[in-house]
Amino acid sequence: MNDNSQTPVTVIGLGLMGQALAGAFLKAGHPTTVWNRTSSKADRLVAEGARLAPTVGEAIKAGSLTIICVTDYPALHELLDTTEVELAGTMLINLTSGDSAQARETARWAERRGAHYLDGAIMAIPAVIGTDEALILHSGPQSDFEAHRSTLDALGTVTHLGADHGLASLYDVAGLAMMWSVLNAWLQGTALLRTAGVDAATFAPFARQIAAGVADWLPGYAEQIDSGSFPAVVSALETDARAMAHLIEESEAVGVNAELPKLIKEMADRAIAAGHGGEQYPVLIEEFSKPSGG
Amino acid sequence: MNDNSQTPVTVIGLGLMGQALAGAFLKAGHPTTVWNRTSSKADRLVAEGARLAPTVGEAIKAGSLTIICVTDYPALHELLDTTEVELAGTMLINLTSGDSAQARETARWAERRGAHYLDGAIMAIPAVIGTDEALILHSGPQSDFEAHRSTLDALGTVTHLGADHGLASLYDVAGLAMMWSVLNAWLQGTALLRTAGVDAATFAPFARQIAAGVADWLPGYAEQIDSGSFPAVVSALETDARAMAHLIEESEAVGVNAELPKLIKEMADRAIAAGHGGEQYPVLIEEFSKPSGG
Ligand SMILES: NC(=O)c1ccc[n+]([C@@H]2O[C@H](COP(=O)([O-])OP(=O)(O)OC[C@H]3O[C@@H](n4cnc5c(N)ncnc54)[C@H](OP(=O)(O)O)[C@@H]3O)[C@@H](O)[C@H]2O)c1
Ligand SMILES: NC(=O)c1ccc[n+]([C@@H]2O[C@H](COP(=O)([O-])OP(=O)(O)OC[C@H]3O[C@@H](n4cnc5c(N)ncnc54)[C@H](OP(=O)(O)O)[C@@H]3O)[C@@H](O)[C@H]2O)c1
Repeated sequence: MNDNSQTPVTVIGLGLMGQALAGAFLKAGHPTTVWNRTSSKADRLVAEGARLAPTVGEAIKAGSLTIICVTDYPALHELLDTTEVELAGTMLINLTSGDSAQARETARWAERRGAHYLDGAIMAIPAVIGTDEALILHSGPQSDFEAHRSTLDALGTVTHLGADHGLASLYDVAGLAMMWSVLNAWLQGTALLRTAGVDAATFAPFARQIAAGVADWLPGYAEQIDSGSFPAVVSALETDARAMAHLIEESEAVGVNAELPKLIKEMADRAIAAGHGGEQYPVLIEEFSKPSGG
Repeated sequence: MNDNSQTPVTVIGLGLMGQALAGAFLKAGHPTTVWNRTSSKADRLVAEGARLAPTVGEAIKAGSLTIICVTDYPALHELLDTTEVELAGTMLINLTSGDSAQARETARWAERRGAHYLDGAIMAIPAVIGTDEALILHSGPQSDFEAHRSTLDALGTVTHLGADHGLASLYDVAGLAMMWSVLNAWLQGTALLRTAGVDAATFAPFARQIAAGVADWLPGYAEQIDSGSFPAVVSALETDARAMAHLIEESEAVGVNAELPKLIKEMADRAIAAGHGGEQYPVLIEEFSKPSGG
């Protein structure tokens, strides 16, 4: 990696996350220009060496790349979609949360304005920005990402997902679905075990081991999905469904919530009703790919 | 570990799993006596050196410990709850699937019959029995487990969970809940990403990384549950709930199933309605610990 610590950067939006992003650039030695609607939020950063630009337009002119991180996409458009702001030839990286459709629309808008545009998603909290723990996803033209990668490295573990600007948002929500699902399964198990007097700390290493073990199966299971063929190498869905019934019965018998167990079984039962009982678990992709109630 | 490969063992029930268990004992060099209702299922094992006992009672007399692995607990009682079978002084290890109440009742029954009793659960498929990959959980008196541990080692990775005979069943269903939850979250993400033309194999390593990363948080989060205090160190539940709304909206916008996203948000919304919006995710243990609709 070449030393890009002299690359000037701009950060627009100094909420909790924007302040962390600007702080990480400053720490890495980048000349950093900032702007925020409420200018007082720049005070700490200015004390640390940031330059506060008087307008959004001036802020963007100062950097080789501009990071924008505001509440939502409407706020982004309110700030940038004015004649005062010259975007032609600039590199805009949008780390504001939104959905894939907003990301794609904003990419088309940026293209009309002559800007290079990457859409991103931050899978981290402000406190870890600037460390390897901060996973920051980017999507859009690979060449734009590569051109600015060494600068972006100051923010955390940065990755490029593909040319489709909607990918960062999609991976973001998919990652969150995994996060909440691991947590919820752990809570379900913790609730079950607490009925037998087992504390959460005793159960947690077991839950962790199972989650990490199953995570290792995913690449292999993915091959079944991509080939569209689901031979029951490990076990058949109808065998799983019987064990799912045990999970529901046990949850109800010990008096803990059974909604997650029931949803697990409902999805499997639908695939079995569709004739897939003799196939392996990943065949459920067909149910997950259908609109609810569809 | 001392060499217990000369310890004589008995396996009752030679379905897919029982055959695998008896086969692993034979492979490890244990004199192995078997019995099955349908005696022909012993043929292959007898060819490999097992001894087929004429009755359940004789089979149990032959071993220092007896493993029973049949369809369910009623089948176990049908086989063992007769005057023909002498259980006093024997070591019975029941690897039949069931719930925690059945395990505890069967432990009391075994005690009345004068037997040592461990209840177990097999978290593996027959094909991996005898390898480290086969996780076999045991619960009941620790001394009984320790006395036979080196013999049980022939079956896979054996662990003792505690004195309460119900624990093996509880950990079993809790582990399965984690397994299906990781798989379902991965399917949800795979379905989302496929709408953008990303294949399952491309998405799988990302899902695996998130699952393994979140798994590592569990021991720390468990401390919040055990202390009953849920400060929002990482993020507050109401912040999570806003991102959950994004997951639902994105799923609906791209036309994939949104039931799992909706359940995730419903559980969180209930905790928020109960006044926990400013606390951290593990506070949801209160919702998971309540009977559904309760
Ligand atoms: N914080 C996290 O843990 C986290 C994690 C991952 C992703 N994110 C995402 O990062 C983005 C920013 O989050 P945050 O935590 O920094 O939020 P925040 O602390 O609430 O800050 C919001 C920022 O947006 C600005 N803003 C909002 N509406 C505006 C408008 N109409 N015109 C101009 N500026 C406007 C605010 O300016 P004022 O200061 O003038 O109000 C402020 O700079 C969000 O999309 C969030 O989802 C946050
Ligand atoms: N297979 C797996 O992947 C797996 C994984 C984990 C746990 N388990 C558990 O292991 C246990 C056995 O499973 P399996 O796969 O071996 O099942 P299986 O192939 O269907 O075999 C069932 C066994 O139970 C016997 N049995 C059933 N009812 C009986 C009765 N009333 N009297 C006498 N014997 C009776 C059968 O005898 P006959 O041969 O005479 O019918 C046979 O030996 C189950 O509790 C299962 O949940 C299995």
